[in-house]
Amino acid sequence: MDEAEARERFAAARVARMASVDADGHPHLVPIVFAVDGDDVLSIVDAKPKRTPELKRLRNIAANPRVALLVDEYDEDWQRLWWVRADGEARVEESGPARDRAIELLRAKYEQYRTAWSTPVGAAVVVRVTRWRWWTLA
Amino acid sequence: MDEAEARERFAAARVARMASVDADGHPHLVPIVFAVDGDDVLSIVDAKPKRTPELKRLRNIAANPRVALLVDEYDEDWQRLWWVRADGEARVEESGPARDRAIELLRAKYEQYRTAWSTPVGAAVVVRVTRWRWWTLA
Repeated sequence: MDEAEARERFAAARVARMASVDADGHPHLVPIVFAVDGDDVLSIVDAKPKRTPELKRLRNIAANPRVALLVDEYDEDWQRLWWVRADGEARVEESGPARDRAIELLRAKYEQYRTAWSTPVGAAVVVRVTRWRWWTLA
Repeated sequence: MDEAEARERFAAARVARMASVDADGHPHLVPIVFAVDGDDVLSIVDAKPKRTPELKRLRNIAANPRVALLVDEYDEDWQRLWWVRADGEARVEESGPARDRAIELLRAKYEQYRTAWSTPVGAAVVVRVTRWRWWTLA
């Protein structure tokens, strides 16, 4: 796998996991749906982030913008295991063109945002990726 | 989902993701195979952790034992999405009964450790879980 293929596999995945860190150095970890736009990984939080995990993610990013995103595929044939990690800095966009772009790309990628589920209306989390890492046994 | 079911789903999963934090507050994230033993989540690093991710994980735990472990299941029917997160403190066991126990349980859970793949021979990472969190839309 080279960086181009790592980026492709990452972008094509349906779910990633986002790790952030709070002011006391505790890691936090949630799955996200996302879209890739060049070096940015875009996601949208819930409309009304009453749930602790959503609020925690936003608070962590405010305290420490460093995040890690992981896409991995498990297979019982361990020769086929692989993962791609994107390290970067996150910012929260409550409104404006960056958030509009996130919604546009998420709707394009996920039918769920166009049909059964309404357009996401929460804040966008934009991660500018500064480093791609990947691993495969094969 | 209650805590008993959250623990069951977590224990039954084939892969989890482990987030750790380095001395500078950067999160690190890797997929792991694991076994659950009561409140402990057990995994084994590679025999010769020359690869950066393995070394990084061990260095991070030495600097900051706080880790988060996530099991999640993606489904195109978003009504079926769920995740379980275990927050805790990690320690590295190079040898001894805790590591022996980790190997025993990993071999019991993963056929790969009994057949095509040899018994794991690296250090054990033992995470004592202090908090279980879970989410499901349904």
